[in-house]
Amino acid sequence: MPANTAVIAFRDDVFGHGLLVGTDVPGVYGRSGEFEDTLVRLDRVVGAAGAADDATVLRFPPVVSREVFERSGYLQSFPHLAGTINAFAGDDAAHRELMRVVENGSDWSAAFTSARLVLTPAACYPVYPALAGQLPPGGRLIDVSSYCFRHEPSEDPARMQMFRMREHVRAGEPEAVVAWREAWLSRVADLAAALGLEARTDLASDPFFGRGGKLLALNQRERRLKIEVLATIASSDQPTAIMSLNYHEDHFGSAFGIVTGDGQVAHTACVGFGLERMTLAMYRRHGFDRQGWPSPVRELLEL
Amino acid sequence: MPANTAVIAFRDDVFGHGLLVGTDVPGVYGRSGEFEDTLVRLDRVVGAAGAADDATVLRFPPVVSREVFERSGYLQSFPHLAGTINAFAGDDAAHRELMRVVENGSDWSAAFTSARLVLTPAACYPVYPALAGQLPPGGRLIDVSSYCFRHEPSEDPARMQMFRMREHVRAGEPEAVVAWREAWLSRVADLAAALGLEARTDLASDPFFGRGGKLLALNQRERRLKIEVLATIASSDQPTAIMSLNYHEDHFGSAFGIVTGDGQVAHTACVGFGLERMTLAMYRRHGFDRQGWPSPVRELLEL
Repeated sequence: MPANTAVIAFRDDVFGHGLLVGTDVPGVYGRSGEFEDTLVRLDRVVGAAGAADDATVLRFPPVVSREVFERSGYLQSFPHLAGTINAFAGDDAAHRELMRVVENGSDWSAAFTSARLVLTPAACYPVYPALAGQLPPGGRLIDVSSYCFRHEPSEDPARMQMFRMREHVRAGEPEAVVAWREAWLSRVADLAAALGLEARTDLASDPFFGRGGKLLALNQRERRLKIEVLATIASSDQPTAIMSLNYHEDHFGSAFGIVTGDGQVAHTACVGFGLERMTLAMYRRHGFDRQGWPSPVRELLEL
Repeated sequence: MPANTAVIAFRDDVFGHGLLVGTDVPGVYGRSGEFEDTLVRLDRVVGAAGAADDATVLRFPPVVSREVFERSGYLQSFPHLAGTINAFAGDDAAHRELMRVVENGSDWSAAFTSARLVLTPAACYPVYPALAGQLPPGGRLIDVSSYCFRHEPSEDPARMQMFRMREHVRAGEPEAVVAWREAWLSRVADLAAALGLEARTDLASDPFFGRGGKLLALNQRERRLKIEVLATIASSDQPTAIMSLNYHEDHFGSAFGIVTGDGQVAHTACVGFGLERMTLAMYRRHGFDRQGWPSPVRELLEL
């Protein structure tokens, strides 16, 4: 079945079983009570996989300042996926003019100007400025989770414009950070297996923007900076990343002034879990009736 | 103590105890693991208060389409609080120009144009378009929860730019909707009392924009459309709304074409719980050491 046909068939299945509810925006869905319940159970299992590390929990709302966003380098690599936030700062007269434009059915967006805020593109972005300065001996490990925004309207329910990402973020000396990511490489494979997912781990690259992006992607692959866990969601020919492990080297350490105990620029890495994608992968793999999921999976999820 | 002094003192207390972490944006905070844990427990207690109603659970990401937003009437009443989302649709050349502006430290927001999305101002907004059409006999009751955006940068930790709101939304015949809100009036008072909060219930009005807004607020009070549960957070002189009960009459029914079984425009009402505000009110009332909270409260929260 061609990939796009498979996507539409799967989406219709997901809608038909009432797990997601469509809206008037591609990639923006309502989640049913059961979908949420499954997602929360998966999130708990993800948390248990990293519990031994005793990470510091931090939760941010899904925005960062424009300044943090600029320093992160996201605009250089992924301008097409970003979402900036504007607000209205006009007076009564400007409001009357705004309402006139709205009532004419015209585009009123010009009445809104920058609120100096940007939607969080990945759950870890607010963490780096919070780590600025000298790390304690051994570095830091932060557990974050957030709605994230990617401006890529799509019919594929596995490619949402807003979705939740749980992440662990490690900052410290290069060797410690690399070793931490290595440890998670086997953890994510174990986790996918425990969930009964026929997943595979592969080198990957980010969707860098434009012509120059191809070189960046090649470089990322050659340096083994991004590894993904892929599972079938809409299409078995084109499996979808449900988890990813990213080594940023000194990128965020340099950008946000994060330094190790001996004054070197800290390295960072993160492991991220796409919670909606994991949820969809479970229904795709085990069927739309949760009662029929394999016993070990049901036990793991406490279903 | 003057209100603003009280606000800063309380904020410093909240920061000092590590419950919230400041960022470079007023009203945007990181939440500690304990803060989140308390919030989740309060959310569970809120859920239990309405459990008998067997509401349909729906969860939306914190955005709505520009079209839904226009129809909701929010721009007429609260343009100053809204956040619209822009995205970048340029090519390689436009990207090079964007990066030049960013590197100059200039305002690059003009390179982003409307993504036809708006941040959700209240958890219930995505529900109304989902209810469009004829309601089943007896109407509908929806349980929603979402991060919400209000563009009102403030030093008061109880006035966040992004915060979570749990809501129950009732749609149906006017008498049924009014009776439902009446039932919640005693439930919210009971809930606040069970949490040991010295709360009071009062008529209220929304922060309508501009000169004309004063009339709208007066009208809202006279018609008893908005009732709030107020508790001390930063200032005991100026308590903060932690819950609110809103009767919209036929506003959303008309805007989104929601009709009752006999073809009349449906009325709607909602009861909303500000989860961060409830959490802060608990620490303010019972102290920063959860171990010392009153036994009945600890039992209710399963602490």
